Amino acid sequence: MEELLTREDAAGVATLTLNRPERLNPLSDAMLDALQDALDALAADTAMRAVVLRGAGRAFCAGHDLREMSAARQAPDGGAEAFRALFAKCSKVMTSITRLPQPVIAQVQGLAAAAGCQLVATCDMAVAGQEARFGVNGVNIGLFCSTPMVALTRNIPAKHAFEMLTTGAFIDAARARELGLVNRVVPEAELGAAAQDLAASVAGKLATAVRIGKRAFYEQAEMGLRQAYAHTGEVMALNMMDDDTAEGIAAFLEKRPARWQG
Amino acid sequence: MEELLTREDAAGVATLTLNRPERLNPLSDAMLDALQDALDALAADTAMRAVVLRGAGRAFCAGHDLREMSAARQAPDGGAEAFRALFAKCSKVMTSITRLPQPVIAQVQGLAAAAGCQLVATCDMAVAGQEARFGVNGVNIGLFCSTPMVALTRNIPAKHAFEMLTTGAFIDAARARELGLVNRVVPEAELGAAAQDLAASVAGKLATAVRIGKRAFYEQAEMGLRQAYAHTGEVMALNMMDDDTAEGIAAFLEKRPARWQG
Amino acid sequence: MEELLTREDAAGVATLTLNRPERLNPLSDAMLDALQDALDALAADTAMRAVVLRGAGRAFCAGHDLREMSAARQAPDGGAEAFRALFAKCSKVMTSITRLPQPVIAQVQGLAAAAGCQLVATCDMAVAGQEARFGVNGVNIGLFCSTPMVALTRNIPAKHAFEMLTTGAFIDAARARELGLVNRVVPEAELGAAAQDLAASVAGKLATAVRIGKRAFYEQAEMGLRQAYAHTGEVMALNMMDDDTAEGIAAFLEKRPARWQG
Repeated sequence: MEELLTREDAAGVATLTLNRPERLNPLSDAMLDALQDALDALAADTAMRAVVLRGAGRAFCAGHDLREMSAARQAPDGGAEAFRALFAKCSKVMTSITRLPQPVIAQVQGLAAAAGCQLVATCDMAVAGQEARFGVNGVNIGLFCSTPMVALTRNIPAKHAFEMLTTGAFIDAARARELGLVNRVVPEAELGAAAQDLAASVAGKLATAVRIGKRAFYEQAEMGLRQAYAHTGEVMALNMMDDDTAEGIAAFLEKRPARWQG
Repeated sequence: MEELLTREDAAGVATLTLNRPERLNPLSDAMLDALQDALDALAADTAMRAVVLRGAGRAFCAGHDLREMSAARQAPDGGAEAFRALFAKCSKVMTSITRLPQPVIAQVQGLAAAAGCQLVATCDMAVAGQEARFGVNGVNIGLFCSTPMVALTRNIPAKHAFEMLTTGAFIDAARARELGLVNRVVPEAELGAAAQDLAASVAGKLATAVRIGKRAFYEQAEMGLRQAYAHTGEVMALNMMDDDTAEGIAAFLEKRPARWQG
Repeated sequence: MEELLTREDAAGVATLTLNRPERLNPLSDAMLDALQDALDALAADTAMRAVVLRGAGRAFCAGHDLREMSAARQAPDGGAEAFRALFAKCSKVMTSITRLPQPVIAQVQGLAAAAGCQLVATCDMAVAGQEARFGVNGVNIGLFCSTPMVALTRNIPAKHAFEMLTTGAFIDAARARELGLVNRVVPEAELGAAAQDLAASVAGKLATAVRIGKRAFYEQAEMGLRQAYAHTGEVMALNMMDDDTAEGIAAFLEKRPARWQG
C-alpha cells in the first residue's frame, strides 16, 4: 500500500503530499496522525525553510472521512468520544501548521471541501489552479463546518464566510483570491512550479527572521493594539541582535550580497 | 393605520417588512419595539428556518427617527435618559438579530442610511438591488454613527469604514459587495426573488445544523484561535450525535436523498 | 539645515511633511522625535480638524534609518537598549496617530517601505499616487517587519499580509486599494489636491463629532460585540447632548444649513 503522506525535500523546501488520490485524500484518522507526525518532524528540522502541502491526483482534499466517522457510531456511546477525539486531533493538526516555524503553502487543485478547505485557510499562504473549487459544504449533509469556520473566518469577510457556511456553495479560484482565501491563481499546468516558486522565495530569506516573524504574526493577531506593539517591539529588538541580521543590514548598506550563516 | 412591521411566512421563510414607506421606514421607538417583538417571536418559532428583512417602498431604511429624537429634548434632563434608552434598545435589536437561531438576510433597495446601514451590516447576509446606496452619514448632522460602526467595522476593511464614517459619503451596491457589506447585487426587478432564493437555500438545510452553526459563528469570532478550536470541536462532536445528521451522512454515503425529521 | 519635519496649516487642515527627501525621509531617531512633538502639539490644537502626512521629494518614507541603527551596535551592549528604545519610540508615534483627535490622512507618492508602509497602514486613511509602491521588505535584509505587521494586519487580509511580510515583495497602488491599505488612488499630478480634498471633507464636519467617533472607532475594535454596543451606545447618547449636534439635527429637519459653534 502506498504511503498515506509522502515528503520530498529539495533546496530547503519540504513538499508534503496527501496520498489517497482515489478517495480525494480525506483527512482520515490515520491521515491526521501522519500529518501530525510530519509536522512534528518538520518543527525540529532547521534545514527546511518552507513547506508546500499538496494532494495527489485530481483533488486537494475532500475533507473528513465520512465512512470512518459513520463506522464510529457502532461504539456503545454512539461515537461521542470518537468524534470528540477526531475533532481535537484535527484541530491540533491545524494549530500545528500555524505554530510551525516554517511558512506553509497550500498548493490546491480541484476540490478543497470542508476540512480540506479548512486546510487551505489554515496554511499561511495558498496557490490555486484556476479550476480549483472551495467549499465548506458540511451543511448539505447536516454537519455544519464549525471547525473549518475558525480558519475561514480569519481569512475572508464575515458575510461571504457566512454564505459559504450556510449555503454549502462552492466558490472558484478567482473568487477565492478576491476574498483572501488564496494568494495566487495560475493555470493547472503551472501550479506545482508556482507553489515551489513562492516557497523558494521564502526559503531564500534568513530563516531565523522568518521564524521570528511567523510566530509574532499569529501572536499579535490576538492582542490589542498597545500590547501588540509592546510585544513586537521586543521581538524586533531581539531580531536586531542576531548576527545574521547585523550582516544583512551591513551588506545592504555596503550594496553587496549578505553572507548568512543561518 | 398600517401595521409598523408586517410578517409573512412561506415555506419556512419569514419575511419581515418595515412598513413606513412614506417616511423611509425609520427605526422609531415603536419600530424598534415591533422589531424586537418580531425577533423574540421568531426565536421560538421552529417552523421558520430563515428570515428576510426588507423595507416597504423606495428605501430600505433611513436610520433613526430624528424628529422623535429631537422631541425628546423637551424632557427636564434634555433627553439624556431617552437617548440612552433608545441606543440601548436599538443595540438590543441588533444583537437579537445576531443571536436569532435563523439566518437573517437583508433585502436592500434604495437607501440604507445610518442605523439603516447598521441593520444591513448586522444581518447575517444581504442582497441588494443595483441602485441601492449605503452610508453612515450621521456625521453630516453632527451625530457620529458610533453604534452603526460596531456592525460596519465587523464587515468591511478598516480604512474604508473610517472613510464612510468621517465623510458621510455613500457607496453604491457594487462597491458594497466588493467591500463585503452585501453578498449579492441584482437588478431591482429581481431583488425580492433573489432574497427569497437565498433564504430558501438556507431553509432547505437541516435547521438544527444551521442553528448550531450560526451560534458558533459569532461565538468563535470573539475567541483566540486555541479557544475557538476547543469550542467548535465540541460543537461539531455534538452536531455529529444528532439523529438527522447521522441520516444526512448515511444518505450521502448511500447516494440517496436524506430523510430528515428536523 | 532644513527642518526635519514641516507643518503648514490652512483652513483647519495641518499638513506635516517628512523633509529629508535626499534620504527618502527615513524614520530616524530625530524624525520620530519631531513627529511625536508635532502630534502632541496637534492633539491640543482644536483649530486643526484634519491632518495630512506626506513626504518631500520622490518617496513617502523608506522606513527606519538603517545607518543610524547600525551605528548603535558600537554600544557595550551591542545596541540592545538602543533598539528597544527605538522600537518603543516608533510604536508610540504610531499609537499617537491612532489616538490623535483629528483624522490623519497619508498622502503617498513613490516608495512606502517597512516602517514607511506601517505609517500608511497606521493613518486613518490614505491617498496614493498611481505610481506608489508599498512593501514590508525588512525580511530581505534579515529583519522581519514585526512592528509594521501590527498595523498592516489590521488593514488587509491575513494571507496577503503574510505574503508581503515573508516575501518582501512590493504591491502597487491599485492593489493596495483592493486590499484596503489605501482609500483612493489618483494620478501623481492630482495627489496633493486629492489628499487635501479628503481632509477638507472631514474638516468640514462638526469637529466634536469626528473626535468622539475616531476615539470610539479604535476603542470598540478591541471589544466583543456586547461590550462594543454598550460602549458606543453611551458615546452616541453623549454625542446627542452636544449643543452643536442639537443644532445640526434641527437644521436638517428644517432643511437649512447648520450654524455650528464648534
